[in-house]
Amino acid sequence: MKKNIKVNLDKIFYPDSIAVVGANKVVGTVPYDILRNILDADFNGVVYPVSPRERFIAGIKAYKYVSDIPDPVDLAILVFPSSVTHLALEQCGQKGIKGVIIISAGFKEVGGEGIEREKRVKEIADKYGMSIIGPNCLGVINTDARSKINASFARRMPEEGTIAFLSQSGALCTAVLDYAYAKHIGFSKFISFGNKADVTEIDLLYYLKDDPKTKVILMYLEEITDGPGLMKAARTVIRAGKPILILKAGRTPEGALAAASHTGSMAGNDEICDAAFRQAGIIRCQNVEEMFNIAIAFAYQPMPKSNRIAIITNAGGPGVLATDAAIHEGLELAKFSEETLSMLKKNLPATANIKNPVDIIGDARVDRYNVALTAAFNEPSVDAVFTILTPQSMTEIDLIAREIAKVAHHSEKPIYASFMGEADVSQGIDVLQRNKIPHYFLPESMCRAFAIVYQFSQTRHNVPTTIPTYEDINAPYVEEMITHTISMGKQFLTEDESIRLLKAYGFPVLKTALATTVDEAIQKAEDIGFPVVMKVVSDKIIHKSEAGGVILNLQNKTEVTEAFHTILENVKKFNPTASVKGILIEKMILDGEEVILGLKRDKSFGPILMFGLGGIYVEIFKDVSFRIAPLTEHDAKAMIEETRASAILHGIRGRKPRDVEKIIECLLRLSQLAVNHPSIEEMDINPLIVQPKGMGAYVADVRIILKRE
Amino acid sequence: MKKNIKVNLDKIFYPDSIAVVGANKVVGTVPYDILRNILDADFNGVVYPVSPRERFIAGIKAYKYVSDIPDPVDLAILVFPSSVTHLALEQCGQKGIKGVIIISAGFKEVGGEGIEREKRVKEIADKYGMSIIGPNCLGVINTDARSKINASFARRMPEEGTIAFLSQSGALCTAVLDYAYAKHIGFSKFISFGNKADVTEIDLLYYLKDDPKTKVILMYLEEITDGPGLMKAARTVIRAGKPILILKAGRTPEGALAAASHTGSMAGNDEICDAAFRQAGIIRCQNVEEMFNIAIAFAYQPMPKSNRIAIITNAGGPGVLATDAAIHEGLELAKFSEETLSMLKKNLPATANIKNPVDIIGDARVDRYNVALTAAFNEPSVDAVFTILTPQSMTEIDLIAREIAKVAHHSEKPIYASFMGEADVSQGIDVLQRNKIPHYFLPESMCRAFAIVYQFSQTRHNVPTTIPTYEDINAPYVEEMITHTISMGKQFLTEDESIRLLKAYGFPVLKTALATTVDEAIQKAEDIGFPVVMKVVSDKIIHKSEAGGVILNLQNKTEVTEAFHTILENVKKFNPTASVKGILIEKMILDGEEVILGLKRDKSFGPILMFGLGGIYVEIFKDVSFRIAPLTEHDAKAMIEETRASAILHGIRGRKPRDVEKIIECLLRLSQLAVNHPSIEEMDINPLIVQPKGMGAYVADVRIILKRE
Repeated sequence: MKKNIKVNLDKIFYPDSIAVVGANKVVGTVPYDILRNILDADFNGVVYPVSPRERFIAGIKAYKYVSDIPDPVDLAILVFPSSVTHLALEQCGQKGIKGVIIISAGFKEVGGEGIEREKRVKEIADKYGMSIIGPNCLGVINTDARSKINASFARRMPEEGTIAFLSQSGALCTAVLDYAYAKHIGFSKFISFGNKADVTEIDLLYYLKDDPKTKVILMYLEEITDGPGLMKAARTVIRAGKPILILKAGRTPEGALAAASHTGSMAGNDEICDAAFRQAGIIRCQNVEEMFNIAIAFAYQPMPKSNRIAIITNAGGPGVLATDAAIHEGLELAKFSEETLSMLKKNLPATANIKNPVDIIGDARVDRYNVALTAAFNEPSVDAVFTILTPQSMTEIDLIAREIAKVAHHSEKPIYASFMGEADVSQGIDVLQRNKIPHYFLPESMCRAFAIVYQFSQTRHNVPTTIPTYEDINAPYVEEMITHTISMGKQFLTEDESIRLLKAYGFPVLKTALATTVDEAIQKAEDIGFPVVMKVVSDKIIHKSEAGGVILNLQNKTEVTEAFHTILENVKKFNPTASVKGILIEKMILDGEEVILGLKRDKSFGPILMFGLGGIYVEIFKDVSFRIAPLTEHDAKAMIEETRASAILHGIRGRKPRDVEKIIECLLRLSQLAVNHPSIEEMDINPLIVQPKGMGAYVADVRIILKRE
Repeated sequence: MKKNIKVNLDKIFYPDSIAVVGANKVVGTVPYDILRNILDADFNGVVYPVSPRERFIAGIKAYKYVSDIPDPVDLAILVFPSSVTHLALEQCGQKGIKGVIIISAGFKEVGGEGIEREKRVKEIADKYGMSIIGPNCLGVINTDARSKINASFARRMPEEGTIAFLSQSGALCTAVLDYAYAKHIGFSKFISFGNKADVTEIDLLYYLKDDPKTKVILMYLEEITDGPGLMKAARTVIRAGKPILILKAGRTPEGALAAASHTGSMAGNDEICDAAFRQAGIIRCQNVEEMFNIAIAFAYQPMPKSNRIAIITNAGGPGVLATDAAIHEGLELAKFSEETLSMLKKNLPATANIKNPVDIIGDARVDRYNVALTAAFNEPSVDAVFTILTPQSMTEIDLIAREIAKVAHHSEKPIYASFMGEADVSQGIDVLQRNKIPHYFLPESMCRAFAIVYQFSQTRHNVPTTIPTYEDINAPYVEEMITHTISMGKQFLTEDESIRLLKAYGFPVLKTALATTVDEAIQKAEDIGFPVVMKVVSDKIIHKSEAGGVILNLQNKTEVTEAFHTILENVKKFNPTASVKGILIEKMILDGEEVILGLKRDKSFGPILMFGLGGIYVEIFKDVSFRIAPLTEHDAKAMIEETRASAILHGIRGRKPRDVEKIIECLLRLSQLAVNHPSIEEMDINPLIVQPKGMGAYVADVRIILKRE
């Protein structure tokens, strides 16, 4: 049956009625705790316990089967053992229930039979047009007063807030809820999506885009199954003004292995994930703390107009640390006007430092904070205020926190705080947190969070998403060549075939000719014009240089003759059985900078493109960039700019600026090629020789590997 | 008068009697609070308040002047206004007091008159052989039961512990004490050393080296005045087995400026500081939290025998995060023996993951933690255990914490814990902290702290500290040349002079000859042997390439003739007034890899040496390393290995391995040169052309800048 995910998710988050299927009376077990949590959260609707054995649970009439419930049911929460979950689910389908949460574990994550169980569950969901969250999850929470539902076995119902939190790990949810509870961090929706058998993180992103209660979306993710889908959804959400923060686990191969045994998932390559997130505008977080540090900055305070900050501190040392961190994060210390300076001078003691960072000295009471805060907020060059406090003997911690909250309440400039310490400052921190002033123990974390918010506010999330396509290509010809080659049982194209493929896609290819005799070689070299390069052509030899099959910069007949013989000898030594089709004669470009363009298929994200400067830059400095195809023009440009070596292309230190436009074009053509021909498994254009600006670039060598038949 | 700093510091930290000079009766003021703190800490000695006005303070008889005290006094704490501090200090000197703490501010940090005041104070201290801590500080704390002294105006007396904390900022101390109090972090000594007018951080390091109560030393530092002294002291302390952790503020120019206005200090260049710390074995921390994360790992737990860890978790997601972090930090997940696996299989539920990381599943109670902990501790391949907990509905947080503490108590393998959350887990964390189990909210921080401890345990802090010196040098000749040049009002040496200088220090210099006519040029080129390089020699031209004054790879007479004229023309265009001494003819090395050796003087650290691969590597990738001269052989090697480009010198991807031994020798000769001739302000050997292994290297160009007269 066709399903409307949005409508179904509404049934899950805003149900009029809930059936807890598999409820029981044993306090401290998941089935009971879920029912109890729903009741304790003061759910705005009707709850029906479903239990074959009990007449009532927690004082509420229980039903034997879902079908016995006399009224319509929006949401069913299944806490049955995994072996019988499909039976209960079938009944839900027949009852016309559209929203389901399966809490139970014992599915894909345990392998074997579990995989089958999960498949069956998904089939039933599709049959009845139901949407399922889970299995193997903690449940969902919606703090919206319209619903107030805690359909989870979490210990706590969080405060209402504007942060949506999604997690593939249920256990992490309990840590996050405990952490957030202590810090008064509220949530709009809190969703543990487990094995995502049916509803995925992508569906949830689209749903949260339209959720007026959600300002910022946080996600813990172990497995990315549909990379392009995730990127598309993320772009849509971000364009709607909602930042997405993701903590992606399984970064290392070992971590991915642990993830595999944990949720039956295989994590992808970490650099690719980095690139994809960047491309989509997703903010990737390093750990849970960083994620919430940034989240509260987005959730609590307005976006800054600029990166010019004022620092107010009662402690010199921490002021220096904050200044260091601010500069490190690319922020600027605002220069105060004469007016502000004289105002500060008049109202602060002579020992105070009235320049930014403002040091109001260790014995500062609330009045001095008030003076400095007022001055900073009134100063036109200041667009955000960072307040620092250490608990010195006279510090009125609580009053100062209240003062900050009061000032913030009336201002459109963001304000952040760092009360350094833990015991004495705790009360003040509590005041800040209740009043939605982002608070950080470390000035360094404060600066970092602000910098991320500032960068997000500055990024134009509306850059054109047009995918350029070239018309001067011959896709059918290429597809036929590939299909033919694969059907012959071969996995790679010869040099000659590769060049024909490149030409069919409009890549600039060097003038070349194939020679089988010395005389022919001399003739062709003269036609092309000296100097030339000579390369062996053989099915058996992929890395031609290693085989001694390439000789550069041949200036005349004699050198060509010599090279011809040398190459044949080298190749014979390297692989005596390799049959040689001939020697390729190629124009030698003298004034060129070598770059590499690459293509690789990834399980999660599909076609990955790579860019880097040739040779040693790639090998030693790993100075390469990745993007997921198809590329926009913006993506292609960004790929190049992201490498440090791009400075060379732009002509540092008297070098010639290179034809970067041509590289962009080549990347875009490669992107089109990658999308059009999924049978190309890997491809290296190495090198693409880039001439000075306006003079083009030439593919000098290429290696194409096809899918195995 | 000669002073014995060690004896004086003993008077400060272990006094039999203390005079609080400038004490008063006003609760909540610094003078009163210090007296009160000394009394409250149950000081093991006699306190004498000194006040011209009061007969008694806090129930204790007060004296008008220090000289009125009938008994000997070990330590005087001065809380007088800065304008009269010198008078009180003079009296202390006459009384024979050897230990002084000056709390008062208003000295160097305020500039002007303050600088004079600080000088006077230092003079008096030297006159009487006194040692002074401060001025402008919070005071000192010694938790040792033999003394129990809180000679500070901090709000709290910390617990006893094995961490010594030193800070240049008094205000940061209050934050640290508050933070440590909440986490049950104890200190051996807690020292706010302020402006360090007399006793410096270096004196304190030597003192703490011999303090049996101190295991690890932490320092917050803004200004390094004696870099080499700090390095030497650090090396001595570290060789005694005590790690030193430093948080160095003023990293950025702006931060340094804030530091300047704060303590009247000028911070040094950050990369240099990084290099110096690394060279001395100091662990540089990024922020206060990281510093304590690492400190408790050192202070609480034994050193690990290897980097093979076991992870035990009740939560899959955090287990994955910990695995990621561990691998990222260079740790290894131990492979369990069959015995351990079968023991775990027998005693854990079937759903548990018995492979490392061990997932004992969300409903784990204390018994499962016991099973896994016991197994991990008994497993021979495991040398450290990381325990992770998230607060799930059945989690016995408190009991599990006690269990971890109990197990740790009986084991010689280190154990670390991460209880993720904040509210519910707080009680468990408290148990861990009281029992000296290093606890981290983030598994990532846990892995990092362990990795630092492991690296420290692996570093051979007893590498030879011998400074190699070459005898085949002619230092007087070079010194005379430099002195002569400076006396002529010149600031740099010509090419010719530079080469003579290099030769006098045994550097391998290319065969060269100076030519003033074309015929001479041809003659000299033939003598040296083609191909050659030609370079202009002129006092007015330092960057010869930019002036078009260098032409490479000249193969024969004709090319030499042409080059001679071209260079003269280029130079004339570049600077028509530049007088040309001649053209230098130099052997051209074809098969060479170019590296740069540099020398620079730093205010704090003295002679800094630099190493990097030539050209683009330095410019774009900043792939250079620094060390402070004089170098040990180990330092010189480490400098090279630290650069990523060193892979090229070792011969990656079929490249020839280079004569790295010769580079080391050149670095050591440069080090000797730098130390012998302080008038060399800057120097670049660029490039040093390094030939294949065993074939040597040649200085191809050098630039030497001298001190201004």
